[in-house]
Amino acid sequence: MTDRTDANQLIQQTTKDIVFPSGDAGIEAIERQAQLTKPPGSLGRLEDLATRIARMTADPRPRLKQRVIVVAAADHGVTAQGVSAYPSAVTGQMVANFLAGGAAINVLADHAGARVRVVDAGVASDTGDDRRLEAVRLGRGTADITAGPAMTRGAAERALAAGIALVDDERESQGLDLIGCGEMGIGNTTSAAAIIAAITGRPAAAITGRGTGIDDETHIRKIAAIESALRVNEPDLGDGVGLLATVGGFEIGVLAGVYLGAAARRVPALVDGVISGSAALIATAIAPEVRGYLIASHRSPEPGHTATLEVLELEPLLELDLRLGEGTGAALGMTLCVAACRLLDEMATFEEAGVADSETVVEPEA
Amino acid sequence: MTDRTDANQLIQQTTKDIVFPSGDAGIEAIERQAQLTKPPGSLGRLEDLATRIARMTADPRPRLKQRVIVVAAADHGVTAQGVSAYPSAVTGQMVANFLAGGAAINVLADHAGARVRVVDAGVASDTGDDRRLEAVRLGRGTADITAGPAMTRGAAERALAAGIALVDDERESQGLDLIGCGEMGIGNTTSAAAIIAAITGRPAAAITGRGTGIDDETHIRKIAAIESALRVNEPDLGDGVGLLATVGGFEIGVLAGVYLGAAARRVPALVDGVISGSAALIATAIAPEVRGYLIASHRSPEPGHTATLEVLELEPLLELDLRLGEGTGAALGMTLCVAACRLLDEMATFEEAGVADSETVVEPEA
Repeated sequence: MTDRTDANQLIQQTTKDIVFPSGDAGIEAIERQAQLTKPPGSLGRLEDLATRIARMTADPRPRLKQRVIVVAAADHGVTAQGVSAYPSAVTGQMVANFLAGGAAINVLADHAGARVRVVDAGVASDTGDDRRLEAVRLGRGTADITAGPAMTRGAAERALAAGIALVDDERESQGLDLIGCGEMGIGNTTSAAAIIAAITGRPAAAITGRGTGIDDETHIRKIAAIESALRVNEPDLGDGVGLLATVGGFEIGVLAGVYLGAAARRVPALVDGVISGSAALIATAIAPEVRGYLIASHRSPEPGHTATLEVLELEPLLELDLRLGEGTGAALGMTLCVAACRLLDEMATFEEAGVADSETVVEPEA
Repeated sequence: MTDRTDANQLIQQTTKDIVFPSGDAGIEAIERQAQLTKPPGSLGRLEDLATRIARMTADPRPRLKQRVIVVAAADHGVTAQGVSAYPSAVTGQMVANFLAGGAAINVLADHAGARVRVVDAGVASDTGDDRRLEAVRLGRGTADITAGPAMTRGAAERALAAGIALVDDERESQGLDLIGCGEMGIGNTTSAAAIIAAITGRPAAAITGRGTGIDDETHIRKIAAIESALRVNEPDLGDGVGLLATVGGFEIGVLAGVYLGAAARRVPALVDGVISGSAALIATAIAPEVRGYLIASHRSPEPGHTATLEVLELEPLLELDLRLGEGTGAALGMTLCVAACRLLDEMATFEEAGVADSETVVEPEA
């Protein structure tokens, strides 16, 4: 998937395939929930979650057996502006850590019963030829967005196409019922904030957080970098691909492609933190119906994340002050999706269990 | 464990055994977290949770392999006042459902990798002789608390002792690293609300919710029943056993005993909803140090639950509008405890993974 025409055609076709979740499965799920041995609505948001997933998957009792976390990594030229507490070398080092199984996402994906798919979307350092690594490699990091576009439009299209292809590959090889997006890329909260500022229309200062834990001076440089990036690139909000190309990142493009592909194949997709949130914004800018397949796993303390979830009209499942990325929140959210769907599928009905329903009581006991 | 003297001695000895969590394990956990391949503090509340559990268990890398959900069931004489949408018969029917594996807690305990221990603490209907059922049976439901005490002081002591004995039995038979409390008992939100109103000093109307989903008239009757129970019984707040005996329930007593036993054996214990919350209040009224071993799994929409968590100074992990009980929230909270401790135990350090720490960077890249 390196030819630009092919990439463009895949994006076009995928976008056409996306339909807003609907059909009878959601109604059937609601009807079944009313028959399960529990007071109506007493499983709260887990019931709504299971119903949404039933609607997404067009399956009244979705089982979510095959689960994947995609961790896309790339570097960012904007780190030249001193926006991060870590050197770019850490991106490649963390890719090695993902492959060795030592990162937080390895632990949490295992906890969630999910496979981890690691993608080198464009890491600056050499990530080697480990065959478990998906080598998309759109460049050795993006260009500095304060001086011009992050990447060519062709590279943006290839990033999106790679994400779509990854969803199809997982579906066809081992099956795919639920996908979560994670990332690694020193400097990528700056690109994400630029995308979020552009789409939400909020000032950079209002949506820019401390990323991995930067000091006041770095924070000021980060806000200035986002403002420069938006001024220099003048992104067109109606053009999702263009927004990705001007102020985005390679890993953000791959994840946006994952969201497009997941929506086209009716696979529920979890949003993690602020970076995958910006990828979801790119995907919904390209195809608004993608929103119907997104599940917000958690609320990050990064202010841009709340702004993103508001635009996406998503209520996060968890609020644990996670700000690590890698898909860690998505993996935890995945466990709640699995729990919600298992309850819908596995609980006994009042009839099966021989339990009296509340409707059988008309008068208080006396 | 039916002799009153024995029960009293077990409670006394257990209470003496409880020490507030402290020691070096918490400090070691914090030191290790600083070395793991992630920005400092980026796993947010999961880091605090793992540190707390390290402190509780006196283990710097707690593994939480052996997990149990106790579901204690009992009936309540106060249902004669028409406080519930369901008949008392449902308590026994749900016990059968727990044993058959069809209830929400069976699904969620399996999801959390936990054993379910079902206790008949005092169900009105016949629950049979299934050997998987722990037959404590302190009565065929409590007496109506609007007319006098729920149970004798001796029964309250036996309930507490049964909970303590259950913890010891689990520890000695299969091992026990983490325990969650759940319950079933038509009418038990009324008893729980009476305990919570007594301890928090808030008016019954302010802490009384809709339980399993009652209408306005039933809600008014429920508030009146709680007010009557407190007026008639005049519980002594300094006497946890007496509070349990006057307005409590058999299952609440067993769960309060579980909290006492867990604290004495340094086993972290999850609070579920408003009923297990009231049991935690009874346990802390008997031994305030119990609080150090409690983990609030979720926030229920029942107003008395928030009041309870405030008194216990606990911040819930989840907020999913769960109001089912059975330990469903505790089981979900359990998965987060396991995740938090697995991260602490299994993640690679910067040194192990060859990843640069943020401290190695003194100047922004340029």
